[in-house]
Amino acid sequence: MENITEQLEAALAATRDVNQLDSDTKAHILTDLAEALRARVTVILFENEKDLKLLDADDPKRDRLVLNAERMEALAKSVLDVAKLPDPSGKLLNQQVLDNGLLLEKKAVPLGVVAVIYESRPNVTIDVAALCIRSGNVCLLRGGTDAFHTNQILVEIIQKVLIQNHLNPNIVQLLPTDRKFVQELLTATKFVDIIIPRGSQSLIDFVRAHAKVPVIETGAGVCHTYVEQSATIDKAVAIVANAKISRPSVCNALDTILLDEEIADLFLDGIIVPFEKERVEVFADERSYAILERLGYPYLQQANEIDFGREFLDLKCSIKVLNGLEQALTHIATYSSRHSECIVSNDSEKLERFMNAVDAAAVYANASTRFTDGGEFGLGAEIGISTQKLHARGPFALEKLVTEKWYVTGNGQIR
Amino acid sequence: MENITEQLEAALAATRDVNQLDSDTKAHILTDLAEALRARVTVILFENEKDLKLLDADDPKRDRLVLNAERMEALAKSVLDVAKLPDPSGKLLNQQVLDNGLLLEKKAVPLGVVAVIYESRPNVTIDVAALCIRSGNVCLLRGGTDAFHTNQILVEIIQKVLIQNHLNPNIVQLLPTDRKFVQELLTATKFVDIIIPRGSQSLIDFVRAHAKVPVIETGAGVCHTYVEQSATIDKAVAIVANAKISRPSVCNALDTILLDEEIADLFLDGIIVPFEKERVEVFADERSYAILERLGYPYLQQANEIDFGREFLDLKCSIKVLNGLEQALTHIATYSSRHSECIVSNDSEKLERFMNAVDAAAVYANASTRFTDGGEFGLGAEIGISTQKLHARGPFALEKLVTEKWYVTGNGQIR
Repeated sequence: MENITEQLEAALAATRDVNQLDSDTKAHILTDLAEALRARVTVILFENEKDLKLLDADDPKRDRLVLNAERMEALAKSVLDVAKLPDPSGKLLNQQVLDNGLLLEKKAVPLGVVAVIYESRPNVTIDVAALCIRSGNVCLLRGGTDAFHTNQILVEIIQKVLIQNHLNPNIVQLLPTDRKFVQELLTATKFVDIIIPRGSQSLIDFVRAHAKVPVIETGAGVCHTYVEQSATIDKAVAIVANAKISRPSVCNALDTILLDEEIADLFLDGIIVPFEKERVEVFADERSYAILERLGYPYLQQANEIDFGREFLDLKCSIKVLNGLEQALTHIATYSSRHSECIVSNDSEKLERFMNAVDAAAVYANASTRFTDGGEFGLGAEIGISTQKLHARGPFALEKLVTEKWYVTGNGQIR
Repeated sequence: MENITEQLEAALAATRDVNQLDSDTKAHILTDLAEALRARVTVILFENEKDLKLLDADDPKRDRLVLNAERMEALAKSVLDVAKLPDPSGKLLNQQVLDNGLLLEKKAVPLGVVAVIYESRPNVTIDVAALCIRSGNVCLLRGGTDAFHTNQILVEIIQKVLIQNHLNPNIVQLLPTDRKFVQELLTATKFVDIIIPRGSQSLIDFVRAHAKVPVIETGAGVCHTYVEQSATIDKAVAIVANAKISRPSVCNALDTILLDEEIADLFLDGIIVPFEKERVEVFADERSYAILERLGYPYLQQANEIDFGREFLDLKCSIKVLNGLEQALTHIATYSSRHSECIVSNDSEKLERFMNAVDAAAVYANASTRFTDGGEFGLGAEIGISTQKLHARGPFALEKLVTEKWYVTGNGQIR
């Protein structure tokens, strides 16, 4: 195959077959899909096994790639959950009659063709297809080579469900994994309305550097928690421990602790208990290093400049002691990736100043940054956390898979 | 000067001085600005004259560049109009208490740093500065070389008003016109949140090709009006004449007329009256050519393939005769720039099908496409018409100069 132009053309053509479907029809397709996934577990696991056989036994991708009966049931259930979410398309956003008699309406309509580039998780295939069908979009799935057989059987099942419902199977398409097609996809402004890279920072950087199609960046999270001097220490320790330990591999996990000098001793004396238990490796600035050394914390290193603004995605964090809110704000403005930022404090003025001054998708007062998540925010399944400012910021979920369209109805008005 | 990094840093720093201002303060600054513009008309016209002297007497840019007492008064008035528009920032978009007791709020907040790259119109300088101040954004203005002296005095006046109001003058900055700085601006993802190119298609294409900062494309308008066979001919003629003739140089002006075969004779017999009066040059397909030739229309040429999908921006248009709605939809899907598209018809089913099936920022039933405009749509001054689908579609006005931010307030919640 030389190019993917035919698939792109078929995607654009298919937008007309899905963007006018009513909400019940789309929900019904998803119910059928959940049923089909349950009915075909055996064949899916068989294909999944083919992919797994090509990986080394200790390859870290293995856990992301593997499907089993339990994960399949979770997938089917997530499809049913999406079916129950309100359809964002068709919503009337605005309606007025202008002085000249024109009826002016603004409606939410599907984006059109949504492309997702991702790595080895096959659940993305099902999640994205379900979200796109629910919102009336066509989707182009460009999964990783590692998951090829799994993705192929999943998309085959989705397309069969579409055909059974008398719909165009090109509403959901799997793209070939050959790298040379990525460039064509990234520049297909005539056919693709939005590209979402979902995966490693290097994937996101590559897409950002080469895409001509608009990109929703679901970027890295370099997340700070600032413990202000008035904070209740027990609460601060619990929040920080949760933000770091509960799931260190995700983007809303804590990376850097900022401490007011006045409470640094007390706080560190508290945090070393959960941190030592989980062997959290700490990169400490001079002042926190001195305290942690005195406390005999075993997993301690001196922080270098690169340890601030670093996304650890692991049981590691950096710590800095500073003097007051303004210093914390400056540190965050310099090193934050504008994802999720937190202050722990009992001073209402400082809480308010922090929340307003910090430029991030989500700002927290006295709670763990781990809550930045489509499900936790009540938005349902998410495609990622947007750290950019246009169109979507924070959890990028079903409600953002639409654009606006102005409907102007007249009876001969001229200007 | 080697680079504009200092100006970019100063812009980022200034966001904190403008993004927390309350609505009344921002409106007050604009009232002061309108007053300052009126008080300093003489010096502004003096500087404008310097720019004009550098142009040839018959340079078409002259009309875009020239200021006079009347235009200055219109500018001052437009600033006062922006002051009266509702402030989009700070608006509470969503508020709920989650089951775990977290207070979750979504608020509209200023985008941050807005850069606009434009050509010789100095009114853009004032319009953009006013819109950015109203919405709490910093703006970077990169105007054309032709308007250098004019833009310099205008920005000097704006900065004086900011200083008088005890504000950071870097909230509004003029960038140097040297071409080499454009590249730095387009890739300044650390400092600039959004870039809006405003001007010719080649400027927009250049920005789109080179920008790493998110771009709002205010693109070309290739606008069709489809006269369906059930249309009232008089009405269709009035709508088409208005869409083509009232202001041919703008993006919402008509480019192509699509005619059902059944009414082609009657419609063309009507449209030649206003078209001949204004000497509208017609690029006609075979069937419409035959009719217009028979009617003796003098400004007639045979259409080539390039005359469809062409934005004329002039008293020119192309015409195609076809057979029914589906052919019209296919033509529009192929050639449209997704700006403004119109159907003239008395058949309610066809009207509905057209409005839903056409993918464009604005779709019209029985009215001139010339209404696609921020002012006409009740949104106030606009920065351009967005033909893209993310963030803003259609008139890009004050209400879109914001992003979202999630505020999460807890009392120790962990996940």
